[in-house]
This record gives sequence, C-alpha cells and structure tokens, in this order.
Amino acid sequence: MAKELPLSADQIESHNAARLDALHDDYDSLGRALARRGVDIDAVKARVAGFSVAIPSWGAGRGGTRFAKFPIPGEPTTIHEKLADCAVVHQLSTVTPRVSPHFPWDCVSDYAALREEAATLGLGFDAINSNTFQDQPGQQLSYRDGSLSAGDAGVRAQAVDHNIDCIEIGRQLGSTALTIWVGDGTNFPGQQDFSRSLDRYLEAAAQVYAALPDDWRMLLEHKMYEPAFYSTVIADWGSSILAAQELGPKAKCLVDLGHHAPNVNIEQIVARLHRFGKLGGFHFNDSKYGDDDLDSGSINPHQLFLVFNELIEAELNPRDGFDPAYMIDQSHNVTDPIESMIASAEAIAGAYAKASIVDRAALAEAQDANDTMLAFLTLRKAYRTDVSPILAMARMEAGGAIDPIPAYRASGWRARKAQERDAVGLGAGIV
Amino acid sequence: MAKELPLSADQIESHNAARLDALHDDYDSLGRALARRGVDIDAVKARVAGFSVAIPSWGAGRGGTRFAKFPIPGEPTTIHEKLADCAVVHQLSTVTPRVSPHFPWDCVSDYAALREEAATLGLGFDAINSNTFQDQPGQQLSYRDGSLSAGDAGVRAQAVDHNIDCIEIGRQLGSTALTIWVGDGTNFPGQQDFSRSLDRYLEAAAQVYAALPDDWRMLLEHKMYEPAFYSTVIADWGSSILAAQELGPKAKCLVDLGHHAPNVNIEQIVARLHRFGKLGGFHFNDSKYGDDDLDSGSINPHQLFLVFNELIEAELNPRDGFDPAYMIDQSHNVTDPIESMIASAEAIAGAYAKASIVDRAALAEAQDANDTMLAFLTLRKAYRTDVSPILAMARMEAGGAIDPIPAYRASGWRARKAQERDAVGLGAGIV
Amino acid sequence: MAKELPLSADQIESHNAARLDALHDDYDSLGRALARRGVDIDAVKARVAGFSVAIPSWGAGRGGTRFAKFPIPGEPTTIHEKLADCAVVHQLSTVTPRVSPHFPWDCVSDYAALREEAATLGLGFDAINSNTFQDQPGQQLSYRDGSLSAGDAGVRAQAVDHNIDCIEIGRQLGSTALTIWVGDGTNFPGQQDFSRSLDRYLEAAAQVYAALPDDWRMLLEHKMYEPAFYSTVIADWGSSILAAQELGPKAKCLVDLGHHAPNVNIEQIVARLHRFGKLGGFHFNDSKYGDDDLDSGSINPHQLFLVFNELIEAELNPRDGFDPAYMIDQSHNVTDPIESMIASAEAIAGAYAKASIVDRAALAEAQDANDTMLAFLTLRKAYRTDVSPILAMARMEAGGAIDPIPAYRASGWRARKAQERDAVGLGAGIV
Amino acid sequence: MAKELPLSADQIESHNAARLDALHDDYDSLGRALARRGVDIDAVKARVAGFSVAIPSWGAGRGGTRFAKFPIPGEPTTIHEKLADCAVVHQLSTVTPRVSPHFPWDCVSDYAALREEAATLGLGFDAINSNTFQDQPGQQLSYRDGSLSAGDAGVRAQAVDHNIDCIEIGRQLGSTALTIWVGDGTNFPGQQDFSRSLDRYLEAAAQVYAALPDDWRMLLEHKMYEPAFYSTVIADWGSSILAAQELGPKAKCLVDLGHHAPNVNIEQIVARLHRFGKLGGFHFNDSKYGDDDLDSGSINPHQLFLVFNELIEAELNPRDGFDPAYMIDQSHNVTDPIESMIASAEAIAGAYAKASIVDRAALAEAQDANDTMLAFLTLRKAYRTDVSPILAMARMEAGGAIDPIPAYRASGWRARKAQERDAVGLGAGIV
Repeated sequence: MAKELPLSADQIESHNAARLDALHDDYDSLGRALARRGVDIDAVKARVAGFSVAIPSWGAGRGGTRFAKFPIPGEPTTIHEKLADCAVVHQLSTVTPRVSPHFPWDCVSDYAALREEAATLGLGFDAINSNTFQDQPGQQLSYRDGSLSAGDAGVRAQAVDHNIDCIEIGRQLGSTALTIWVGDGTNFPGQQDFSRSLDRYLEAAAQVYAALPDDWRMLLEHKMYEPAFYSTVIADWGSSILAAQELGPKAKCLVDLGHHAPNVNIEQIVARLHRFGKLGGFHFNDSKYGDDDLDSGSINPHQLFLVFNELIEAELNPRDGFDPAYMIDQSHNVTDPIESMIASAEAIAGAYAKASIVDRAALAEAQDANDTMLAFLTLRKAYRTDVSPILAMARMEAGGAIDPIPAYRASGWRARKAQERDAVGLGAGIV
Repeated sequence: MAKELPLSADQIESHNAARLDALHDDYDSLGRALARRGVDIDAVKARVAGFSVAIPSWGAGRGGTRFAKFPIPGEPTTIHEKLADCAVVHQLSTVTPRVSPHFPWDCVSDYAALREEAATLGLGFDAINSNTFQDQPGQQLSYRDGSLSAGDAGVRAQAVDHNIDCIEIGRQLGSTALTIWVGDGTNFPGQQDFSRSLDRYLEAAAQVYAALPDDWRMLLEHKMYEPAFYSTVIADWGSSILAAQELGPKAKCLVDLGHHAPNVNIEQIVARLHRFGKLGGFHFNDSKYGDDDLDSGSINPHQLFLVFNELIEAELNPRDGFDPAYMIDQSHNVTDPIESMIASAEAIAGAYAKASIVDRAALAEAQDANDTMLAFLTLRKAYRTDVSPILAMARMEAGGAIDPIPAYRASGWRARKAQERDAVGLGAGIV
Repeated sequence: MAKELPLSADQIESHNAARLDALHDDYDSLGRALARRGVDIDAVKARVAGFSVAIPSWGAGRGGTRFAKFPIPGEPTTIHEKLADCAVVHQLSTVTPRVSPHFPWDCVSDYAALREEAATLGLGFDAINSNTFQDQPGQQLSYRDGSLSAGDAGVRAQAVDHNIDCIEIGRQLGSTALTIWVGDGTNFPGQQDFSRSLDRYLEAAAQVYAALPDDWRMLLEHKMYEPAFYSTVIADWGSSILAAQELGPKAKCLVDLGHHAPNVNIEQIVARLHRFGKLGGFHFNDSKYGDDDLDSGSINPHQLFLVFNELIEAELNPRDGFDPAYMIDQSHNVTDPIESMIASAEAIAGAYAKASIVDRAALAEAQDANDTMLAFLTLRKAYRTDVSPILAMARMEAGGAIDPIPAYRASGWRARKAQERDAVGLGAGIV
Repeated sequence: MAKELPLSADQIESHNAARLDALHDDYDSLGRALARRGVDIDAVKARVAGFSVAIPSWGAGRGGTRFAKFPIPGEPTTIHEKLADCAVVHQLSTVTPRVSPHFPWDCVSDYAALREEAATLGLGFDAINSNTFQDQPGQQLSYRDGSLSAGDAGVRAQAVDHNIDCIEIGRQLGSTALTIWVGDGTNFPGQQDFSRSLDRYLEAAAQVYAALPDDWRMLLEHKMYEPAFYSTVIADWGSSILAAQELGPKAKCLVDLGHHAPNVNIEQIVARLHRFGKLGGFHFNDSKYGDDDLDSGSINPHQLFLVFNELIEAELNPRDGFDPAYMIDQSHNVTDPIESMIASAEAIAGAYAKASIVDRAALAEAQDANDTMLAFLTLRKAYRTDVSPILAMARMEAGGAIDPIPAYRASGWRARKAQERDAVGLGAGIV
C-alpha cells in the first residue's frame, strides 16, 4: 500500500538541511564524549531508532476538566481526523507508529477500511481501550453504580459484552491487547463491600479473559481515585497484580504514571511487577498532584528516567519475559495536542536513550560493593547527558524532522485544518 | 409575605409524632450525662438553634467528573427548581436558610422577583459566586489563558466587569458577600511568570474591590490545583492572606476543606487566618484525595470537629472580629443532592454542637499546665458525645423533621419532580 | 500462680464506687437507645469483654525523634520495669493482657522466669519482634547496608540467626508469632537493584520461615519509608502479600496504620489482605504525616472505625480464616506512656464496639440496592454512638477502672517509680 | 594569613592534567552549541565562578534516624575536625567557601581563634544556627514543652538568651545572619492553643530580633512536621512570612526544600516570598517523602532547576531587593559526608548554571503570547543541557578538581583520618 503522509517530505527535508551542520557537530561531540566513557553512540542511536511508543486517539483532541474544556480551531472530532493528526506526529517524530483507539469513541462501520486508512498514513493500531465508565446515548443499562463490578448482573454482562466487542474490533484492526480501566468504585464509606465488589469484578473480567485470543494480552490498569473518590476496585498495583494472577498468564498490569498515591516510588513498582512476571505496559504522562495527565517528563523527568532505568534492567534480565506495551495517555488541556504528543514522545525516547547509556557493569559493581555514591553517580552521569543529538539524528535518518515542533509550526497544518474541520463546541463543565 | 413551604407540615408532624418518645428519652438521658459534666443541654440546644449554613444552588443538581455525569430523574435544571429543592432541605433540616447562587448559571431577568420567590420558600441569599473559569456561549473573550490574572488586558477587564455585575445582582438579592475563585494557573513550568501573574490578579481584584459596597466582603478562595495542574495563582492560604492584606479590610480568606495539600493541618490554618484577622468563611465538604467535594464529615469527621473547635475558640476570643460565612460546597455525584445536603448540614451542625460542649476552662488549664493527655481527653470527651438528640430536638422545635432523610423519602418529592421536570442530558465526559 | 497486681484493688473499687450511679444511668440510657435499633447492649458488652490488644514492651518508655528524646522521671528501663508498667495498663483497662517483646532490647538470662514474672502480673506474651535495623554493641557484622536483604551473605546469615533466636525465645515465652520488620532499603536511586534485593530478602526470610514451629505465624510488616528514604524492600502491601505468598501459608501480612502513602485507603487494604487470605495482624497507632506513631484514634478515629468495620466483616465472612493479631505500636514522645496506652487501648476497643453495632443486614441490603446514602448512614449511625458506657461497664466488671486515667493518676504510681527507678539519660538526638 | 589547605595541590593538579584534554573538548563542544543559541559559555562560566553555597558543620558527620545511626571510621567529632573536612569539600569543589555552624554543638572557648583556623583552611562562616529543640546536659530548663513558644516564661527567656548568645558568637565569627528553627509544636489535638502559641513565639522572637545588629538578618525556617507530629508553630510559608512581617525588615523567610506538604509547588513559594520581599535563603537538600534530608538533586533535580529558575528571575527583577543565603542542609546517613557535600554542591551549582542559560527574552515573549509549549520548551532546552563542562572548567580554574569525588578518593583523606580521629559510638536509636 502506498503511504500518503500528511506533510510534505520536501518541507521536512529543507527544515533538516538548515540544521544539519549543527546537528553533525553536536552528534560528533557527544560521540567523542560517550566514546571516552566506552559507549558507542551509533549503537545507542540504533537502539533509539528501534524504540517506539503508541499515542492515544483521544489525545489528538483537547482535553479538559470537570470545570471546562477550551477547544481550539482545527481540533479533530472523528477518528479519521484524529488519525491524520497522529500521522503528523509520527511523520515528524518517527517514534509513534501506532495509535491506541478507544471504543465506542472511535466506532466506525468498517474496521478493515479504518486499518487500511491508518496504514496509508503510516500508522498501525495498538492496545484497544474499552469504556465502561460513561453512559452512551441509547445504552440499555447505566454504569452509574459500576460496570464490571456492578451489583446488577445485567450491567456486568453489558460491560463484559462491550469488552468482547472491543476484542473483535481489535482483531480487525490488528491489535493484540485490550486495556481495561474501569471507573468502578465508591464515594462513601459503606457504599459497597470491598470484597464482594472485587469478587464480581474478577468474575466478570474472567469472562472477558476467556474471549481473549491466544496471542493477546489483557492489560489491567489500576488507579487510586477519580472518578470515584473514596475507593476504587483496582486502586493500586497490589490489587492489580493479584487480579492478574487470578485471571491467568495473558493478564498483565499496566502502569499509568499518574495513578498512584503521593510520594510513591513508581520505579520500584515497575521493578516489582517485572519481578513477579506481570509487567504489561505503560500509560505515560506526568503529574504533580493527581491524575493530571500532563505531558510526559514535563514535571519530573528524573522519575521518567528512573522508570526506564528499571525497564532496561528488566530487558537485560527478563526473568519471566519482558515485552511491555508503551503508550502515551495525556490530556492536552492547554496546548496543541500534536505539539504535546511530539514533545512527550521525544521526552520518553530521551529517557529510554539515557537509560540505555547507563554503565550497567559499573552500576552492578558499585551496588555489590555497597558503594552508594558511585552507584548513584553512575545513574547521574547518564541522566545528565544531553541525548538530544542522538534522538535528532535517528529522527532525521528515519525521515522525520530534526526539530519537530518548529517543523510542525512551519507546516501550517493546524491553520489549514481550522479551515477544513467542523468547530468543536464548548465543554460546558460539569463541576 | 406568606411562606409556601414545599412539603406538607402535617406530614412532618406525624413523622415527628412517631419518634417523639424516643427522642425525649435520648434527649433527657444526654441531658443528665451533660449535666454531670456541668453542661446545660438546653443552652447547647439554643446555640444549635441559632446556627446555620448556606447551601449552594449548584449543589441541588448532580455533580460529575471529567469522565462522566450520571443525572437522576427529577433533577433541577433552573434556579427556580433549585430553590425549591433547597427549600426542601431547609424545611426538613432547619439549618440551611440561605442559598449561595452562582452566575451566570443562575441568571434571571428579574432578581427582585427571584428574591421574593426565595423568601416565599423560606430562603434568603448568601454569598454570590462569580464564574470566570468557563467560557459561556456568546462570550466575547475566552478565559482559556486566565481571567483576573490573564495577560490580555481585555480579558481581565471582562472578568472584572463580570464580578462587578455579580455584586449588583447580589445587592438586589440581599447578599453582602462576593466569593471569588478563579481557575487561573498553569499546566507547565514556564507557562507564566509567577510574580507577574499575581501582579495582574491583584490589580484586577482591586478593581472589583473598589466596586464593593461598604457592608460587603470579598471572599478570596484559594485552591492548590485543578483545573490548573502545575500552579494556580492563589494556591494556598499564604497567597490568599497576602492578597487579602493588599486589597484591604473588606477582603477576607475563604477556606474550602478540599483545596489543600495532602496532610495539611487545616484547623491550624483556620486559627492562623483568624489570628491575622482574615478569616472570612468556609466551603464545607470532605475529601480523601483532592478536591473531591464529598459530603461534609463523611471521610474525616474528626477534622470537621477540630475546625469547629477553632471556630468556637475564635468566637470566644474574637481579636479583630469574628463573623465567618459558612457554606456547603459539594459535588453530589452518586446521591440525591437533597439527601446529601441534609446529611451534610446535620454533620456540620453536629460538629458545631460538639465543639460547643468542649470544657474550655479545663482545656485552657490543661494547656497551661502542659498536661497534654488531659487537654486531648477534654476534646475527645466532647467529640465522642453523640449530640444527635440535641440536633433533632432543635430541628423539631423549629418545625423540621426529627429524622429528615426518612421524612424526605416518605414525602415522595423526587418522584413527583421526575414527573414534572425536564430530563437532564448525559454528561458526556471530557477526559 | 497467685497474681500480684501492681495497684491496690481497693483503690480501684472505691474509684468505681464513686462513679457507679452515673455509669448505670449512662449504660441503661444507651441500652434503651440500642434496643430501639434492635441491638442488645449486653451482647455488645460481652463482645467487648472478649476483645483484647497487645501492648509493646518498648511503648512503656518515652519515645523520641532523631532530634531529641525527653525522658520522664520514673520511666522504666528494664523489661521487668516495663512489664510492671504494662501490668498497670492492663489492670486498669482490662483489654491489654499481652505484651509484645522486642529483642535484643528485652533480653534476659532466664525466659521461663520472665514468663512467670509476667503471669504473676496478669500478663502473657504476644508476637516477638526481631531487630535487625540497629547495630548492637559487640555485634559481629553491621546492618548498615541491610539485613535480610543485605548483599553480604554473612550479614544475611546473622540476621536469619537472630530471627531464629527470637523464635526460640518466643517459644519459651509462650508466644506463637514472629513479627519481622526490617529497615532495609536505599537513600539513593541506583543504590541497590530492586529485584536482586528482594530476591535476597525472600531467600533469607525463607530460612527463618523454615525454623517456624507449626502453630506459629510469621508476620511481615511493610513500611513505605524511614529509616530508608528512597526505597524500602517491603514498601507496601503489594510487596508484602507477594512475599507472604512465596514464603507459605504461615506467612501473613501485618498492617501498621502509619506505614502507608498519603491518602491511601487503609481499610480497603485490610479488606484486600483478607480477601486474599493474608491478613495477619495490626500495629495500631495514628498519624497525620508519616510514621508518626501517635496515639491510636487521636488524629483520625473515623479511619480506625472503618478499619474495624472491615475486621468485623471479615470475622463474619472468614473466607480462608480470620485470626488477626492486634498490637499497639506507638511512640509516646510527649505523654506518660501508661496514660497513652490506656487511652489508646480504649480507643481501639471503642472502634471495635462501634463496628460491632453496625446494622449489617441493613448495610448489605442498602449496598445491594445501590442505596448509597442509606449504606453510609448505617455506618454513621454506629460511628456516632457513644459506646463509652459499654467499655466502662465491661472494664468495671473485669476488675478495671471506670475512668482509668484518673484512677491511674490517683494511684501515684509514676511518682513512686520516680523514687525507685534509675533516671534515663537525655536522648542527644541524631539529626 | 597563609592558607594551609588540607589536600596536596600537586595531587589535584596531576588529577586535572589527566583529564584536561577531554574537558577542553567537552567545553569547546558545548561552547559551540551554546553559541548557536546566542549564549556565551565564558560568561556563564564567569557566573558559575561567582556562585557559592554554604555547607553545614553538622553535615560533615554521618546523620541517622530515630532507628539508628551508623558511623564511619574517620568521622569528625569536633568543630575543628569538621572544619578540616569542610575545607576538603571546598578545596575540591571551590563552591563552598563558608561553613554554617550550629550551637551549642560547635561551642569553643575562643571564637576569634576558630575564625582564624577556618580562614587558614580557606573558609569563612555563614548563618549561625541556634538549637532550642534539644536539652543539653546541665541545661536549667527543658524544651520538652517548647522553646520560643513555650508556655513557661522562664523557658522562653532561656531560648531567647541562647539565640542572643548565638548572635554574639556569630559576630565574632564574621557571620551576619541567624537562622531560627524551632521544634515547637504539638502531637495531639488540643495540646496547645494555636494562636496563643504563636503569640508567645512572636513575642520571644521579637526579643531576639531586637538584639540583631543592623547588618544582620534573622532567617525564619518553617517546617510542616517533625519532631512535632500534629502541628508546628511555624508550619508553612504563610506562617513564616506573617511572622517575618510582624518582626520587621531584617526578618526574612528561609526555605528548606524538604519542609513542605506533599505535592506543593515549592518554586512558586519561592516566587511568592520574593514577590512580597521576604525571601531570605535556602536549606538545600532533596526528599521523596518528608524531611528526608537527602542529597540535593538526587531525587528531583528538575525541581531544583525550577527553583533556581525563580532565583534568576528574582535576581533580574529584584523588586524589594534580592540577596538570599544559600546553604546545604542534609543528613548523610549512608555516604561519606564529604562526598555527599561535593556531589550536592555540584548539583546546586549545576542548577544555577542551567537556570542561567535559559533564554529569558524568548521565555517572556512566549509567556506574553500565551505560547505555552514554546515557554515550556525554552526551559526544557536549558534543563537538558549538560553543563558539567562549565562547572568543571570553573572548578579547575579556581584550583579545584575536574572530577572532585575521584580526586577525593585518590587523596586517601578518610582512611588517614580514621587513623587519627577518635571513633564515634553507635547511635543506639530512639524509636
């Protein structure tokens, strides 16, 4: 199938041409510095070139809060428009070749055609996200009292059926994973019995699990709170891994960086999930307070690095296997979503690159010697390294832009879309 | 003006008649126990009878999150319907004689008529809440980049004008306070200059202040985060009190129990604001994680008691005056809002009653003697007391229901309204 | 063996005589109120009379922080003096019949004699606490780099041996449980490999497990942080339960109320541990910020009630058994430890009593009907009840004091001990 | 006075010689890259060369927790040994020319001689730290119930006198600032009256203030909790700035990065203190949970950068002046304190350097245009830059080591001191 990428390759090329000398200087300088540490920059670049992260279809639109949503002109409203915007992100950044769809938001009548449409844009499909936290117009039963854990058997059955529908759609789209996040929980002490809720959740999830193709994974996403504000049925990684254990080997745990209690050591949770064979994937974003869904690495880039430090450790020491799914999950409330996805994908790839240049032999040796300072400095040296030239070189070589956001701005994409696309209404806010 | 209360007085009376003997037994038993501690139960009851808390017009509707809102049949959609529901709350609970309106949500063409309508229902109006955190259809300029602190002078002027309009409306409604909460803030480091944002906020707020009638107060409401997730312009009580100091004596600080950092000692903040002459009022609710807007006293009733313990201390030792405005501000996502407001108002009045029976002479003496255990036990004794009979007796004597929620359910109000009122659409969720 | 209790029974009796009429009035009043709810007060009293909680030997001394410790005259310094003080607590409160010792702090040469000494004082021994978080004078290897998870095999062996010694001591003392809490962890990213540390911990813990008598339990105590400030090897309930699963059926999880991340729903964790068959026991205390080790129920008594609400649920619905060990673990920095232990034991017993009067049929019915408000009010009604008369009556009937702290003060115990006991030196602080 | 620096200059020189070529390559490469952004690397280096941060005398020893302290061989125990170790830090790092002493810990009989001793080592003295959170042997009255806020007038007078003594010592040492941190607070609700405690604190602090020389500053250090676990008298920046306002213009606020509630935006607090003219200084460290006193920049280096971003903004826009005191305040529980102070000072200087290369014109322009992404990327570009070559070059040119920690290790300093110095006893732990 011939690809029809959204932006002009010529334009990208001329963007790159103007920056090439500087990039070569930076890349070569970094190459010499890394060589002095025993690191081959081209090998790192090759690793980076092989790295990718999925982007969420809904992330192509502006997000909002219960108070308000402020749309922007040219915002996409259909899955087709969203795919086009995601294609822009991938064309420029070259690290986001897959889109993670969300149903029923992205429902179409012909999924084979949608898959082809995506492929033409250079995109494939990642994990399917089901939605049982909202009621849709015309839906028979309400999720107001829960979905997979609801007390009402009919509601549970409806939620199970929806998830099974998602698997079927995913099959047609070429996906091999189903991400399940439920909003089920309580706002009051006493509202539900904690154990009976979980029993119901596990029983319903097992029915979805039974419908999973052999090569699929079911990714359980835990969340401490919101939309439920007293308890949630899968509130933490402990509940998540115990549920995954009960469901079976295809069930794994998905870590969203913003779904934890304050101060929690997320990189250790990543290590624990891997240690017990249940690390399934990530929803990358950043947060300062709660599930803020901010741009990856914008608040605590060191934490992002430390998470990738665990991932590289896990890759090198796979124990029961290591094949996590990486996805961005952000709410772009105040930026152009395309710019946020480009900047976030780069931050994630940068954390991966930094973790890749950690001197692991020195690290292990320092750990074995209880040489705490040396162990720490080994990480710090990698973290401090500015790996931007490696990312830029890998991007350019893959047909992307050396400096993707300026290249995007120069393309005039959003202004053009503002002419072509329907305007989005105000989000009135729910409060 | 003849009052026309929403529920049948006969029905309430017969509800009470069936419970009167039990109440008398409970009240008399508690009276004897309190007398043994030197407390006159009738004096406490008289205090409770004089206590009141305002309820928010928007609290009469179901709340929601960015993920979804689940409406209920019979939910009010106009200020008129909301007033009717608030009147039910007050008739049964007898402690919520005032409604705090929100503009433009509660806009009508004739405010004198609205005031009369409320009075007929037994209600008055409390602090006016302005809204510059959302864009309204047809609004000239957007608040997407801030309101009172916006970089654009036109936006600031629009926000100032709206607040001045609110004062004018409030005058007509008989209100004497304006509560200002803005969603202004940032989602990214660097998005704004912290100091210049505050400068603009203070300049704009001063223009609103200048329009304030002499007997009005301006209540500044701080909030740590949401809708902005990196910084907010008035994020904490420190920013709030410094702003109030700059604005002048009519500016005071309003404390919302859910707007603080985790673990913060809110009762001490209350004491500090009083100590420095700037305690203006409260938005009561409860929270476990963030601004959860849960029902007052449902998560941490001891904290609510400790807050009232400070308020009674302040009342007894007024320093620069003590006249705080009390209001409920909750989001009723999973309950009938009338029931939540009744239960919350009772919890608040109960905290007030418990704080009123603290043996303050013993407390001060223990504090002076550094007798920590005795000081603590003095509070504990008051907190442990079940003051329900006092509240019920005061309620009944004021024409309310001994057990308001069963009385409300028996009235069939909501089912009747579900017949009469227009249905509310689904909140699609913003995510 | 004839008991020789520390305080004069006559004195307690005359204390009670002066309060008996009031207590009868309160008890009878509450009895009538409970009867109206269908609850038999004498049955509740019988339950309370069967409830007990262990107290820690170290809790008999003043605690402190890294900044300072302020001793009090008459503070105990030996296990013999500590037992005497614990006996005072139990004699007056009648709910603390067991002492939980800590080794090597409580080492003696003859454990059979110690057991007899305790029995004479009316006390038995509860779970043994091992200590591998400090170095003792003369200790061969240091725990500075960890104990059960240390990289050095010799250190791990030393820690294993110490735990096995504790089991042997425990056997002699009549204990049937070993509580393991380690300070192992890191202060820097990179200091240790998370997975290899846990591997070592599990391997060493398995050696201790292998030495456990058949009727013993090993209680794993997790803690988020302190003394390690970046990571700890058993940081959360997730790590704890996975470790307990690997070790075997005698390994269970112990919950300390102060060892969690901010905002975490501890009562749900309790329910989860029970749901998965691993709820082993509790260290009761309270906290506002971290592992503050404050007196139970002094900060958030509602949370304590909600925890006991889960425990009663678990008792009624035991799934894989329910037999948790209850112990107080507090640091009495600013009070007389005897008074704090009395007040805390009463708070814990009170939470148990309140949870026992929850109308569970009504609760389950409301839950099944998704009647959130009614479910919540069912808990609230029980929580609001002042159960003090039930506790006091049960205490008096068991030979304790109606009002134990005034009775303790009247006994002059501490002043007498200040004459008899050696003074404790200043805690210089570590900072 | 002839300086007698602790380490051999020859050794440092030969250390540098072996690294010079690599440094020049790195420096020149960075210089070209910065030049392409319009930044002159030599100007940045000159700024860095002018930057310094004080180190605490107590930081030269190992820290610990209430559970244990693990000393290391060669640890300093007297102020003389501590100065020698601090001189090592400064000789190698060249950014720590001043030591902040703590009394009575650092008491000597002849302060003029101490000042001379320090000068010989290349050191001066920074802010004096008083200590009223511990009792010293022979001290007349105890601080167990507070110090500057104590209910007992004699205790307050003793605390005031101690602070005035500190000022007198500071005068002799050449210091111009007094840092006041008190442990005063409560562990129980009701223990003290919040307002009366603050009244007493303010009255006592005013007496200290009155003794302050004209060119001195009094730095008020707030802390949320620990050693007090329910409330502290100066718990947050709001209390701190209000106290500083009442005391007068010489009173300023000191920010310790670990003394805040979880999730708090510390960089905004810095901006607020500057905006209101009360930013006095810093205690640098890092933390993940509470007042962990970890090495600066080891947990959240991005936050450290954002703090310095505010400091550079304040420097450029001084409003009511800008002259903050910078000091490290860390607890080195698991490392050689000399290594931690070197690594931390470098992290702090690095954050300063990164903040210095932010393109402030572009930042302001993006802010004014509400171009959020561009504003953020302007900060990100500076943050990502590896400024190590600038720091190393500045260090080398000032006589320090290109790579200070390896240079320190090569010097054999600690092993030599382990021979010469008295061993430190175990910290038994307080628990």
